[in-house]
Amino acid sequence: MLKIGFVPYNEFTRIRDANIEEFDKLRIVSAFCRLNTLSAVKKAGSGHLGSSFSALDIVVFLYFNEMNTLDLGIENPDRDIYFSSKGHECPGMYSVLFSAGIISYEKLLKLRRLGGLDGHPDIKIPGIEANSGSLGMGISKAKGMGLAKMLRGNEGRVIVMTGDGELQEGQIWESLQTTVHQKINNLHVIVDFNKIQTDKAVSEIIDLRDLERKFEVFGWHVERCDGHDFTKLSQVFKDFKGVTDRPKVLIADTVKGKGVSFMEGPTSLKSNGGLYQWHSGAPDDEAYEAGIRELVESANAELKRCGLDSLTLEEVETREKRRPKLKDSAEKVVTAYGEALVKLGEKREELIVLDADLSADCGLRPFENRFPERFVENGIAEQDMVSMAGGLALHGFLPVVNSFGVFLASRANEQIYANASEETKIIYVCHYSGLIPAGPGKSHQSLRDISLFGALPNCVILEPCNAEETRNVIEWCINEAKESCMVRLVISPSPRTILLPEGHTFKPGEGAVLTSGRDAVLFAYGPVMLHEALLASEILEERNISLKVVNMPWLNRLKSDWIENSVGECELIMTLDNHAPIGGFGDMMTSVVLGSEKLRNRKFRKLAVNGYPACGTPQEALKAHGIDGESLAHIVLKEVGSR
Amino acid sequence: MLKIGFVPYNEFTRIRDANIEEFDKLRIVSAFCRLNTLSAVKKAGSGHLGSSFSALDIVVFLYFNEMNTLDLGIENPDRDIYFSSKGHECPGMYSVLFSAGIISYEKLLKLRRLGGLDGHPDIKIPGIEANSGSLGMGISKAKGMGLAKMLRGNEGRVIVMTGDGELQEGQIWESLQTTVHQKINNLHVIVDFNKIQTDKAVSEIIDLRDLERKFEVFGWHVERCDGHDFTKLSQVFKDFKGVTDRPKVLIADTVKGKGVSFMEGPTSLKSNGGLYQWHSGAPDDEAYEAGIRELVESANAELKRCGLDSLTLEEVETREKRRPKLKDSAEKVVTAYGEALVKLGEKREELIVLDADLSADCGLRPFENRFPERFVENGIAEQDMVSMAGGLALHGFLPVVNSFGVFLASRANEQIYANASEETKIIYVCHYSGLIPAGPGKSHQSLRDISLFGALPNCVILEPCNAEETRNVIEWCINEAKESCMVRLVISPSPRTILLPEGHTFKPGEGAVLTSGRDAVLFAYGPVMLHEALLASEILEERNISLKVVNMPWLNRLKSDWIENSVGECELIMTLDNHAPIGGFGDMMTSVVLGSEKLRNRKFRKLAVNGYPACGTPQEALKAHGIDGESLAHIVLKEVGSR
Repeated sequence: MLKIGFVPYNEFTRIRDANIEEFDKLRIVSAFCRLNTLSAVKKAGSGHLGSSFSALDIVVFLYFNEMNTLDLGIENPDRDIYFSSKGHECPGMYSVLFSAGIISYEKLLKLRRLGGLDGHPDIKIPGIEANSGSLGMGISKAKGMGLAKMLRGNEGRVIVMTGDGELQEGQIWESLQTTVHQKINNLHVIVDFNKIQTDKAVSEIIDLRDLERKFEVFGWHVERCDGHDFTKLSQVFKDFKGVTDRPKVLIADTVKGKGVSFMEGPTSLKSNGGLYQWHSGAPDDEAYEAGIRELVESANAELKRCGLDSLTLEEVETREKRRPKLKDSAEKVVTAYGEALVKLGEKREELIVLDADLSADCGLRPFENRFPERFVENGIAEQDMVSMAGGLALHGFLPVVNSFGVFLASRANEQIYANASEETKIIYVCHYSGLIPAGPGKSHQSLRDISLFGALPNCVILEPCNAEETRNVIEWCINEAKESCMVRLVISPSPRTILLPEGHTFKPGEGAVLTSGRDAVLFAYGPVMLHEALLASEILEERNISLKVVNMPWLNRLKSDWIENSVGECELIMTLDNHAPIGGFGDMMTSVVLGSEKLRNRKFRKLAVNGYPACGTPQEALKAHGIDGESLAHIVLKEVGSR
Repeated sequence: MLKIGFVPYNEFTRIRDANIEEFDKLRIVSAFCRLNTLSAVKKAGSGHLGSSFSALDIVVFLYFNEMNTLDLGIENPDRDIYFSSKGHECPGMYSVLFSAGIISYEKLLKLRRLGGLDGHPDIKIPGIEANSGSLGMGISKAKGMGLAKMLRGNEGRVIVMTGDGELQEGQIWESLQTTVHQKINNLHVIVDFNKIQTDKAVSEIIDLRDLERKFEVFGWHVERCDGHDFTKLSQVFKDFKGVTDRPKVLIADTVKGKGVSFMEGPTSLKSNGGLYQWHSGAPDDEAYEAGIRELVESANAELKRCGLDSLTLEEVETREKRRPKLKDSAEKVVTAYGEALVKLGEKREELIVLDADLSADCGLRPFENRFPERFVENGIAEQDMVSMAGGLALHGFLPVVNSFGVFLASRANEQIYANASEETKIIYVCHYSGLIPAGPGKSHQSLRDISLFGALPNCVILEPCNAEETRNVIEWCINEAKESCMVRLVISPSPRTILLPEGHTFKPGEGAVLTSGRDAVLFAYGPVMLHEALLASEILEERNISLKVVNMPWLNRLKSDWIENSVGECELIMTLDNHAPIGGFGDMMTSVVLGSEKLRNRKFRKLAVNGYPACGTPQEALKAHGIDGESLAHIVLKEVGSR
């Protein structure tokens, strides 16, 4: 059995009250926070350990030694403000806020669960000062806070932490220029310089070169020190107090995964052929146990050195080891996509693939390894990547541009428009589209991408439902499409393999009827929503209501006559969007239905993800939005019953 | 009478064939090109003179002395490629392409006209290598071209010009980092360092500090010289040839408005209280004549010095002087907006206004002058501006964020989403929304902004039709709205002042019926489209067809019952969007109509700006898209006739 244990709050108060050196306390609190971070991520099943550990000593130092925030209270206008721009190291941040008595134990145990702690920071959580998780925005936001303090005459500093890979984002450099010019001198930046991005060294992805000189030439006061050494951190912040004529930056040399030997950057890179393994995702049972063992040992060694009793973890969960994981066997459309790209790359020499530091997540590694010269790793610089694709397309290449949908469609939107206005052909692949996985939270869940591409006059938007259709979609985009294409891909393993009818052929504007039905028809797309739709159909079958489920991979090119035929005699027409209710597939269908004399007097219901996406397990999130199979079945029952 | 004259092509061939020093030829060609630039802009009625003149000597030098492009031909894959990232100095660029025989005389005379030369570069024009006009994308795009050359083994350099204010855009710094890392060493950047942005000094807006050291620390080979000195330019490009291990940048010190004394940067700043007058817009008749006189004199002096005959301009247009201008008397909603902001600023101390170097265009100067401490000039850094507003909003301020819609809604889209997810209240004002003015071209015409805000769960979108409604809208947004708001504002003078019915009150979700009618109803918004709608109504009245015109300023919050009532007995319902057909007001109305038992069986027609926006005069553009008053009347006639 696997036991998941946490350091309870009274252990932290024990240390706080102990009569030992201040920095010894910090060292012990850090060790305890690492333990809670590791257990919270293990319990959640996902989360970012590497940078939680690299940043953690700094966060502990700030809250317990440097900032006035805990003394004044987290609502006091004169408080020091700290937040992280990258945000993904929030499991570590939450552990620190728990240790300070700001976040409850109950919440700490609910990382990435509905009603718990979001996978990226959210201001609804006590002690969190800004929503983050989309990279590059932090200094700008901190600048607003700093100006607010200046205008109101409030005390307190604004301290914002950035990643190192994050410095590839252009907004960072915008904000470095404006902060100095605007003299927002209460602003402090700390770079968590752990030297590793998603799974490769920063110097390998896009080297940052001489960071100290860069900040200096942008007009900042620069200090650099070991980000795990409290004495040195303390000295830097002492020095900062003497600099009042410009904003300040600390380049903190840190170790990604610090504290668990095999998770530490250099070790992990070496043991895994240059790929870092612990950026995101929970460790397996063995790694978890080994990590806990090591952290407990070092905590106890520190306690012993200070003459304090050993630590006892509080076990909160016991589970069978190595439970079979869905992802081991389930289909993944992104894998099919990656394989299709390689096959197409063999035939089409002009195919070129661009990535923004998400190669593995986007299924690009096979292409990257097979055609290194036609794979462009552009780092976390989506705007630059998209415009570069535009230049390649103007000169006869066919670029396939990849990132998570929430970043690609949104951050590079004007660049996508500028490219489209040149009427070249570019394929944009919006990975991690839709609500699921719902653990990372709203900075990562992409529910607006269809709307963000929708008004381009020359772009076809598609989302495939299974591996076969993924191949069809990619082949069509690359070999057949005349205009640019946007392909949405779900990143999770498919909850079931969607079966297309035998003999089904992939045709523009047409989908596939998956289940027959007379009472209602539900149009959906992609493996996540079609699974829920099929579940609803199965539930309803038991009640003698027949729901027809239609897969429609063409999200903005619909053949009206095909839609009319597939609706057939159903009096209730529904659409189910893995997207916001505005600007998605449902709106396209609304136009088709209103334009059809046959359909416009049927009942029409547009279902979608309303509001901001919930954070939680897939089931929790789907249910929270009322679009899980059971909720869908209830909606149909109610509508059909009230006919 | 005002005479507009051009230097005809044979004058350029005369110089080319003359037996004089090479750089003397360039000097004369430059002078001729300045003349043609000034006349083209005067004839067009708008265009960017200041930076056309600052960049012009460099462009002349490149095409006639440095690049192989004219020798190899503009389609040859081994050619040197030149384009401008800022793009707005294209009147100068077009003049150079005309002098090289690439652009026809006929086209040169049709700057900013339908079927002529777009207000910003477009690749459909011969010799133009990339669409530009949205700042900051050029180096990225050039990087794609450079990589394409490398992968194909083609000769030739890629040379891209940027502005200086443009260096405030983050994408520039993304691309500076990636170009070096990716070793795109055939890439050359020239900074047209004329030291003035829209109307203020770069050092006043957001100072760039030590540019040479900045580029150096980013890993570029840097040279700096006088950008009007052909000998020095020649030396720099000779030096560049010896540098093969990294990309190269030339910081060219130039003078904005160079060649016409009173348009030159330092002179204009001094004579106009620190505000530069010649960034965009055509000179008035006196300034035009003075400019031409000066340019002809200096051209002739140069010709004489070289022993050549004087220049004769070819007159192409004679017009009465000082024709009354629409904008002198017409209402401007943006002026009403600026005045309303000041009034609200007096009452609400938390109101804070942010700008991205478009203060005058966005009507912000009154607020800027009245409340300098609550006016944030953020330079051309929209993403940073939006996130900064987020920080201010988190700390109790009410930020009003301004830029042109095409930049704000699109480039800062992810930042807007991140702010919105914090559920603070921020007012985004998308200026220059819609098709008109159609002279600047598709990089500036904002036809997607409603779609780009539409899927945010908590944002109200409005567009007022006249000064009174503008005040209502801004007051409602600031004093009443619970959520964030996006306000679209037309930038041109209103073609007529839209009259609201007497006693009309401004209510959420409700509009105003402007003309009664039984045969058809047309819902529209904003002064531009309502004018066309009213024109259509007037035309139809003569044919005894009554068209009801309804003003609907609420673009995504529609009261269904109000819509039903205002449709009344009309059997034809139409919507007219100053926006793309997808994701605009028409789509919102589609849902309302389908959801209404009363309305869903009426005829419904969604009219909008289809395809990419046409460049031309307002009338040309409206007609090209079939949405001018006359075209609208024809549509109604056809639809009503076929009932």
